Amino acid sequence: MAIAGPRRLEALPREESLRLLHSVSVGRLVFTHLALPAIRPVNHVVDGDQVVIRAYLGTAIASAVGNNAGMVVAYEADLIDPDTHLGWSVIVVGRACRLPDGVEADRFRRLLLPWVADGNGDDVIAIRADMVDGFRLVN
Amino acid sequence: MAIAGPRRLEALPREESLRLLHSVSVGRLVFTHLALPAIRPVNHVVDGDQVVIRAYLGTAIASAVGNNAGMVVAYEADLIDPDTHLGWSVIVVGRACRLPDGVEADRFRRLLLPWVADGNGDDVIAIRADMVDGFRLVN
Repeated sequence: MAIAGPRRLEALPREESLRLLHSVSVGRLVFTHLALPAIRPVNHVVDGDQVVIRAYLGTAIASAVGNNAGMVVAYEADLIDPDTHLGWSVIVVGRACRLPDGVEADRFRRLLLPWVADGNGDDVIAIRADMVDGFRLVN
Repeated sequence: MAIAGPRRLEALPREESLRLLHSVSVGRLVFTHLALPAIRPVNHVVDGDQVVIRAYLGTAIASAVGNNAGMVVAYEADLIDPDTHLGWSVIVVGRACRLPDGVEADRFRRLLLPWVADGNGDDVIAIRADMVDGFRLVN
């Protein structure tokens, strides 16, 4: 497949980046687990200045956040055409906290259907969008 | 959009995981940059027991690998349907090393067309597939 020359990276403003993130439901949580870089695909919603996920891989994600309240994680979503390599990517970096059970957590549980029945926990985790780094790949 | 119940996670054997990784060209490199979790979409090839990428975001990735030869990184690719949430994900964790200029690096430069012209470096980075963790999301 011929790919016509390299793309240019075009930085996106914060609001546009969060809007793109909001337009898709699947992304990847990046965290540290047993001192190794870890990444898991999850689904998310964007709620104001935070990205909220529901942990479906129970142990790995929940223990990383739960053992160190407010640990810094990254969250990434992208939509990149495998043939043309045009598209966008948005990366959020910020502190992640497990929401305590209650009205707010229940609201997100209704918004975030679990993908996987794994019998492990059901934590709602909010990531503060402290840093938002978005770009488009353009011709 | 109605999504019929949660999926099951089905672990994949190493060979099948590497075959799936080989079947796509886009993935995400996960590394540590300035003590923060970092993730960047890149393109890759699978070559035996290693995943090889060509750094297009020059500074961030190259300095992370270059300043600490053999740092452990993660590499992830997935193909998950945004509506049905069926699909697969493969995660490789292992040491990443910049290949020295020479015949091998040139071979990968021919296989890995750069996406982005950013004027920064052109490193070929090999990630040893020390750990391979693949799963399918099935009904």
